[in-house]
Amino acid sequence: MLEHTYDIIVVGGGLAGLYASKKLIKEGHSVLVLEARDRVGGRTLTEKHGDHYWDLGGQWVGGTHYLLQDLVKELGLEMFDQYEEGDHILDVNGKQIKYAGNISNLNDKYSLDGVFEAIQKLDTMAFSLPSVSDPLSGKPNIDEKQYGNPKTWDSQTIAEWTSKNVKGDDGRAIINWFARVCLGQEPLEMSLLYFLVFLKAGEGYSRLADIKGGAQEKRIVNGSQQVSTRLKELLEKNKNFDIKLNSTVHRIEQHPTAGVSVTVWNDDLGVKDQRVYKAKYCIVAVPPTISRKIDFYPLVSGARDELTQRMPMGCIIKVIVVYKNRFWREKGFSAEVISDTGPIFICYDDSAPDGTSAIVGFIGAQAAREWATRTEAERQSAICKQYARYWGEEALHPIKYLEKDWRTERHSGGCYVGLLGPGAITACHKGLREPCGRIHWAGTETASKWIAYMEGALESGERVAKEVSERVYSSNDQLKSKL
Amino acid sequence: MLEHTYDIIVVGGGLAGLYASKKLIKEGHSVLVLEARDRVGGRTLTEKHGDHYWDLGGQWVGGTHYLLQDLVKELGLEMFDQYEEGDHILDVNGKQIKYAGNISNLNDKYSLDGVFEAIQKLDTMAFSLPSVSDPLSGKPNIDEKQYGNPKTWDSQTIAEWTSKNVKGDDGRAIINWFARVCLGQEPLEMSLLYFLVFLKAGEGYSRLADIKGGAQEKRIVNGSQQVSTRLKELLEKNKNFDIKLNSTVHRIEQHPTAGVSVTVWNDDLGVKDQRVYKAKYCIVAVPPTISRKIDFYPLVSGARDELTQRMPMGCIIKVIVVYKNRFWREKGFSAEVISDTGPIFICYDDSAPDGTSAIVGFIGAQAAREWATRTEAERQSAICKQYARYWGEEALHPIKYLEKDWRTERHSGGCYVGLLGPGAITACHKGLREPCGRIHWAGTETASKWIAYMEGALESGERVAKEVSERVYSSNDQLKSKL
Repeated sequence: MLEHTYDIIVVGGGLAGLYASKKLIKEGHSVLVLEARDRVGGRTLTEKHGDHYWDLGGQWVGGTHYLLQDLVKELGLEMFDQYEEGDHILDVNGKQIKYAGNISNLNDKYSLDGVFEAIQKLDTMAFSLPSVSDPLSGKPNIDEKQYGNPKTWDSQTIAEWTSKNVKGDDGRAIINWFARVCLGQEPLEMSLLYFLVFLKAGEGYSRLADIKGGAQEKRIVNGSQQVSTRLKELLEKNKNFDIKLNSTVHRIEQHPTAGVSVTVWNDDLGVKDQRVYKAKYCIVAVPPTISRKIDFYPLVSGARDELTQRMPMGCIIKVIVVYKNRFWREKGFSAEVISDTGPIFICYDDSAPDGTSAIVGFIGAQAAREWATRTEAERQSAICKQYARYWGEEALHPIKYLEKDWRTERHSGGCYVGLLGPGAITACHKGLREPCGRIHWAGTETASKWIAYMEGALESGERVAKEVSERVYSSNDQLKSKL
Repeated sequence: MLEHTYDIIVVGGGLAGLYASKKLIKEGHSVLVLEARDRVGGRTLTEKHGDHYWDLGGQWVGGTHYLLQDLVKELGLEMFDQYEEGDHILDVNGKQIKYAGNISNLNDKYSLDGVFEAIQKLDTMAFSLPSVSDPLSGKPNIDEKQYGNPKTWDSQTIAEWTSKNVKGDDGRAIINWFARVCLGQEPLEMSLLYFLVFLKAGEGYSRLADIKGGAQEKRIVNGSQQVSTRLKELLEKNKNFDIKLNSTVHRIEQHPTAGVSVTVWNDDLGVKDQRVYKAKYCIVAVPPTISRKIDFYPLVSGARDELTQRMPMGCIIKVIVVYKNRFWREKGFSAEVISDTGPIFICYDDSAPDGTSAIVGFIGAQAAREWATRTEAERQSAICKQYARYWGEEALHPIKYLEKDWRTERHSGGCYVGLLGPGAITACHKGLREPCGRIHWAGTETASKWIAYMEGALESGERVAKEVSERVYSSNDQLKSKL
C-alpha cells in the first residue's frame, strides 16, 4: 500500500478547487492543491494598475448567487451595485433603441418583433427539463408536439432552432445575440439542449440577462480575484492544508487498492523539477478540455475521455477602457449596450468606488476570433469608435486600455466556459460528473446551478467535497475495522 | 542558434508520418520519427494469432486509392479482392432485404422509400463545394434556394437535415446509417457541412459505400499494418532516417530564428527517460485531439488550439469472428450486411487466401458506447446471435473471437477519424492544415482526398512533405547566402 501524504489532492486552484478544499478541511481531511499558474483564481483575474484594480476575468455577483455572497462576506470583502442608471442602448439588427431597467424589460413594446415570444419559448423548454445534471432522464413537463423533446433538442443547434422557431428578425437577432453573450460561441456551435441546460442552471432568461436581481447585480470592491487569494490565505492557516503554485499536473496514476499518485512540474522549466504527490483521492477542478492534457493511468472512462474531446471553451476578449471622467453618465447613459455590430457585443459601466471611470466590454465568439488577428491598437480604435457612436466624441480619448484574450491562456483554453455541441449530451454527458475510480470532477462546467459563473464553481466545489469526504470517511472506517 | 540534429522531426509513426518521411528522405533531408507506441502503423493494427494475420484497424484498399496501391506494390505486398459474391442483406428500419452487387445499387427498386433521392441530394451538395480544404471559400455551384449553402449546412446536424429533407422512413434510416458507418459518430453529432466535405473527399456516396471500384475493393495479404512496418524497414536503410519507438512527445518548443526542440519520454516509465531532440521543422502527424496533449511553447495559433478542442474521434469497436468454415458462402451469402439493429452495423467476409474463415464487423457510434460497458462474452454472444439471424445456427459456434475498442487506445482516442460538429468549420477550419510557425500538420484528418482512409493519410503525408521540404530548401539557401 502506498503511503498517503494527503487525504485529497485537488488539481486546480480556481474557485471550485479552493472552495472544495475549504469544505474538506472543515471535515478534518488533509488537502493539497496543485495549481499550474503562479497565482490562484483561475478564470478570475484582477490586475492592479497604479492604485486601481481591474477585473479581467469573472466579475459579477448575481442577486441569487448565495454561496458566493456568503463567502464574500466571510472573507471580509465588500460589494457594490453595478451601475445601471440612465438609458441603455440596444444596437441590434440595424436598430438603435434606448431602453431602461433590466434587459428582460426589452420586449415587443419596443417595436422588437418576436422577442418576448421567443424568450417565453426558451424558458418554457428550459424549465421543463427534469434536471441540469441529467437532462435526458425522465419525461419533460411540456407539450412535445409544440416544443419537441430533449432528444430532438440535442440534435439541433441554436442557430437552426432560432431560424425555424423564432418569428421576426429582431427576435432571431436577439436570441442569437443572447446565446453568443452567454457562452462565447456562435449559435451554430451550440446544442439547443445544452443551451437550455445552461438556462435552467441560471434560473432562466431574466436572471441571466439582468442587473437588478440578475447575474450582473453586484461587483466586489477591488476585484473578484480576491475571493480566491483571501480563501487561500484563510486555508493556509490550517495545518491540514497545503498548496503548490507553478505546478502543472501532467500525470495521474490510480492504484485500485491504494490511492493516487500525481506527477507535476513547472511548465516553464520543462520537466526538470518533476515531483510526485500521493493521496487517497483526487479532485480535478479544471475545464474538461484542460483536463485532457493530463495523462491518466489507467485511462479514464470512455464517457469521460469522449467528453474531454467534446467540450470546447468559449472565445472571449474582455476589454476595459478607462476615461478621465464618467461622461456617459452626464449625458444620461448607463453604459449598458447590447450590440450585434461590435466589436463589443455587450458593455457596462466599470467605474469603481475608488473614483475610476471606465467601460468594460466583451468581444465574443466569431468576432473574438477575427479581432484576435488584429493589433491591440486596431482593437482599441474600433472599440472607442463604437463607444463614440453611443455616447459621443469623448469616447475616442481613453486614458488607459486593458484587454485579455482568454484563448491565449494556456491553463484555461478560453472563457467563460466549456460547452457542448449537438449530440454531446446524448453521447457522453455522464463523463462530466461521474467519478473515474478515485478521481472526482469539479469546476463551473460541472455545476448544477449557475454553470459558467463563479457561483457555479462554488456549487461544484461543495458537491465534489461532499462526494469525496464520504469516501474518505468510509475508507477510514474500513481501515479501522481491519485494525 | 541551436544545433539541429535533424532537418525535420515527425511526430507519429502512422502512415502519414512515415510516408512524409519517405518523401523528405528522397529530397535529401534528414528525418527523425518519434512514435509513442512500441510499433508503427497508428490506426492500422495487424495481429498474428497462430499462423494467421488479422486486421483490427484500417483494412481496405479502395479502387481509386492510387497512392496506397503504388506503395503496396513498391513494398512487395500483395492484394486480393474483397469477397462479395452472393446475396447481401439489408436489415434496416424493420425490413430485411436481400440484394447483390454494390451498396449503391440499393435504391427505390428495392421498395426502399426515398433512398435514391436522398443520396442524389447529398452528392449534389458535396460536389458543389468549392474545395475540401476550404469549403467556405467561393460560391458553391448549386441552386441555393433548393439546397441551401455551405454556411447553413454548417449550422445543421445530419440528423436534423435528414429529418427535414429526406422523404421516406427508409431513406432517413439509410442516410443516418451511412453517416454512422462512415464516421463512427451519431448523425446528431455531425455537421452536415463536414459530412459533405468527407463525401467530396471520398468521391461521393458510391465510391465510399461500394466494394467493386469503391473504398472496400481490396485487402492486403497478411494485413495492412505491413505497409507501415515495411516502410519503416525501407526507411531504416537510409542513413538520413532515424526512428524512436516508445517515445511520447509531450512538449514542442519553437525558436523563431532557430528551430524546434521536441521533448519525449516513454509514458509507461513516466518521465524518467526524458530526452530532447532538435530539428529545423516539425511535422505533427497525429489526430488533432491527440496533438492537444502536447504542450506547445509558444502556444499554437488560436485557430489550431480551438480545432484541437473541437475534433473528437469516432467510436468504433472492430470485431472479427472466426469460424471453422465459410458456411455463409455455401448458403449463397456474401456476408455483407447493413444493419441498424446491431450490435454490428456493417460486416463483410473476412476470410483470407491462407484458408481462414471469418466475418469482420463493426459496432459504432452510440452502440459502441453502450456495448463497451458490457463484457466481451456478452458482445460475442449478441454478435453471433445477430449473424445467426442472417446465415443460420452455425454462426453461434465460432472458433475464435477478436475485438478492438479503439476508444481505449491512448494514442488514438478513437477511430476511424476525428470529425467536426456544427460550426467548427466556420470557427476554426484553418487550424487543420495551416502551419504554426515551424510546425506543420498531417494525418488523414487533414487530407483533401479520402479523409479517414489510409489513402488520406498518405495524401496528407505527401502534401506536408512538400510544404516542409520547400521551407528547408529556402532556409538552406538563406544560410548559404549568409556564408
